[in-house]
Amino acid sequence: MALTQARTMPGVLELLPLDQIAFQRVLDTIRRNYERFGFLPVETPVMEYSDVLLTKTGGETERQVYFVQSTGSLEQGEKPELALRFDLTVPLARYVAEHEHDLSFPFRRYQMQRVYRGERAQRGRFREFYQCDIDVIGKDGLSVRYDAELPAVIYSVFRELNIGAFTIQLNNRKLMRGFFESLGVLDAEQQTLVLREVDKLDKRGADYVRETLTGTNFGLAAEVADKILAFVQVRSSSLQQALEQLDALGPGPESMEQGRAELKEVLGLIRDFGVPESHFALNLSIARGLDYYTGTVYETTLNDYPQIGSICSGGRYENLAGQYTKSRLPGVGISIGLTRLYWQLREAGLINTARSTVEVLVTQMDEARMPAYLALASELRGAGIATEVVLEGGKLARQFKYADRAGIRFVLVLGEDELAKGVVTVKDMRRQDQFEVARAELIKTLRVELAQAEIAP
Amino acid sequence: MALTQARTMPGVLELLPLDQIAFQRVLDTIRRNYERFGFLPVETPVMEYSDVLLTKTGGETERQVYFVQSTGSLEQGEKPELALRFDLTVPLARYVAEHEHDLSFPFRRYQMQRVYRGERAQRGRFREFYQCDIDVIGKDGLSVRYDAELPAVIYSVFRELNIGAFTIQLNNRKLMRGFFESLGVLDAEQQTLVLREVDKLDKRGADYVRETLTGTNFGLAAEVADKILAFVQVRSSSLQQALEQLDALGPGPESMEQGRAELKEVLGLIRDFGVPESHFALNLSIARGLDYYTGTVYETTLNDYPQIGSICSGGRYENLAGQYTKSRLPGVGISIGLTRLYWQLREAGLINTARSTVEVLVTQMDEARMPAYLALASELRGAGIATEVVLEGGKLARQFKYADRAGIRFVLVLGEDELAKGVVTVKDMRRQDQFEVARAELIKTLRVELAQAEIAP
Repeated sequence: MALTQARTMPGVLELLPLDQIAFQRVLDTIRRNYERFGFLPVETPVMEYSDVLLTKTGGETERQVYFVQSTGSLEQGEKPELALRFDLTVPLARYVAEHEHDLSFPFRRYQMQRVYRGERAQRGRFREFYQCDIDVIGKDGLSVRYDAELPAVIYSVFRELNIGAFTIQLNNRKLMRGFFESLGVLDAEQQTLVLREVDKLDKRGADYVRETLTGTNFGLAAEVADKILAFVQVRSSSLQQALEQLDALGPGPESMEQGRAELKEVLGLIRDFGVPESHFALNLSIARGLDYYTGTVYETTLNDYPQIGSICSGGRYENLAGQYTKSRLPGVGISIGLTRLYWQLREAGLINTARSTVEVLVTQMDEARMPAYLALASELRGAGIATEVVLEGGKLARQFKYADRAGIRFVLVLGEDELAKGVVTVKDMRRQDQFEVARAELIKTLRVELAQAEIAP
Repeated sequence: MALTQARTMPGVLELLPLDQIAFQRVLDTIRRNYERFGFLPVETPVMEYSDVLLTKTGGETERQVYFVQSTGSLEQGEKPELALRFDLTVPLARYVAEHEHDLSFPFRRYQMQRVYRGERAQRGRFREFYQCDIDVIGKDGLSVRYDAELPAVIYSVFRELNIGAFTIQLNNRKLMRGFFESLGVLDAEQQTLVLREVDKLDKRGADYVRETLTGTNFGLAAEVADKILAFVQVRSSSLQQALEQLDALGPGPESMEQGRAELKEVLGLIRDFGVPESHFALNLSIARGLDYYTGTVYETTLNDYPQIGSICSGGRYENLAGQYTKSRLPGVGISIGLTRLYWQLREAGLINTARSTVEVLVTQMDEARMPAYLALASELRGAGIATEVVLEGGKLARQFKYADRAGIRFVLVLGEDELAKGVVTVKDMRRQDQFEVARAELIKTLRVELAQAEIAP
């Protein structure tokens, strides 16, 4: 038979086992923290009806959708009825609308599943990637206090992921809109265009942006351009400073006052939620998707890796599921694009891919002693210690080499000597240390060592 | 805007949160046990190239495949290049062939992901469902000892799932083949047809099957038909009996002797792996897919729910990835079709869907005291206790009702009295019990209660 080349499509991140273990650890940490804050799991089917999935979108998103067809439908030349989800927000909207009467509000859900986008293949861009989202959905209304809870969750997640210092940056779309209105930039579309220019600040510098804004395309007065540039450069380094900076913006139209009041309340509550002031800040340049978000917006960046960009973003929206239901469902949510983040963290050397889930390897000295090896392994597994037994034998040196390559920390030897003395020889592959321990003490000893490893960086 | 009806396609199991929590508990238990036995996680992309996915299959499987196309490819009227995986075995074969030089053998992997089949919509049949697989893949060879390890994993998983008594039933394809040969039924296809008839034994009875086998279609001698019927009715109730039953089959051709020797070794080792004799048995009627499996085959059934059928099946195969690589990769594996199993267990009342992941609700008596509520919640979360805080207020009775509906066990009240006395009022929703506890003792008290709940059935 001619061989088919085993290969995967471009734009997917398929991992080798040790890498997958590291990825799984990150997933578990995120989930544990989401659950610790009382968010409930939801999973939705990877496929949705195309007409349900594509009610709102248009333009680029729709062009990136993967459509799905069964063999029968394909043969009959039908238009595909199904498509793969491209985010978790549309499935959430569909879920909440479909199950509205079975859910309690505010509905707090987390969802960690893969999504699909037919992006152009490019290094660091993925066509299949994990999103890890949390959202709180209210019915008719939702207190702005929830806008402060999400940064507390973000803080908890990234602190535990232990990937260095990070800052959760906040802005408010009402504040922004009101500010632009106060400068006579009333049209939402023009506000968008101005913000897009302002986004070039870091790359092109203030002079370039000022020139564009006062040029023929925008025609803003120099004074207005300067005010915009000053506004978007506001960053706080403490809660007190953030509140002062907000006050210093001076009075504005109603939406600006609303946005300011919301931001102040949210910033104060973030502190009450226990987030250190070093980890959140005002950043008035953050806009996010202009159509979708209507109040608080967030971005989170790693202080030492600004080039990675935002590792967790989100915000407040007015109505989740207007395309499916007449109920008004305001919400606030954040999303971690985990596949890309994991890839970037690994590139930056912040991921440890040398540790297996397998904690112990029981070696085989003599195949006649197999029952003793299996009994030892059973005992360890019963104590919750992940244990592999060498079932095929071979030289002991090769068995050690296997453990080393596989990232297994403890290798146990149970030879005739050990059996006679009632002990086990333990080799700690990480510390390159070897010791004997009484059989009765083995589990306790390994547990202590493994618990210490959990704490170590 | 006209509303689009929020709906999902037929054949998917979308769960409400409490149900999803119960499902997630099952997934976690399976994963924990797979890891405890030293299996490594693998995840593969949901999409594979169609030509890679469909090298081997034909007939029914291919007719059930979902094909995937990007918008661009669809517009250009191209044939779909991509398809959704329909099991985890073909992706495993592709993975092992693609990464062969980066893997250590025997390669022990687990994979728990959703697969897709365009089945006819029918109650209890799913188009999207979880498979939870483990396989051990050898290079060139793989000891039959691994055939005994998988039942030990199955035992460990289902014991911990706590869904009642179950039996892991074993047979061996070589034994079967040799037995048929000894009766003059030499053709593999005819063996398959005979086994298909024999499968009707439970439904139609022995007389019906005997009549068919001796009828014009098969034309077997009455004596041969009787021997076949006796063979497939062999069931053991202890290891000793199983070994005796195997011996009682009498001598046979080489493949029968090989199969018998393998079965005896595997049965003995299963006991050495610590599986009680009550939980595994010889069952010579088990055939599984005749083309694929070549040695040991397994099925697992719930003793009290035979109508559910096999909850975990698998076996030994000669060569995993012959379509992709010249390397010979024998293996042994099992699979749990979790979505269907979960659905069946729930129907049978064996799933508890009343317990939330949220362990504590901190109520709101007075919004001015919000910082105190948030500090209390932070403390609990720091101790690993999943805690939700009521951020929107409302009557206390309504907050209790919310906790009750949501399956949250502990509701905490921190009013002026409690704050003054340095205590917290704890209401245990499950026991309908209420008590005061000193603030400093709160975490310890809740931990004890929660740990007890873990143990309780």
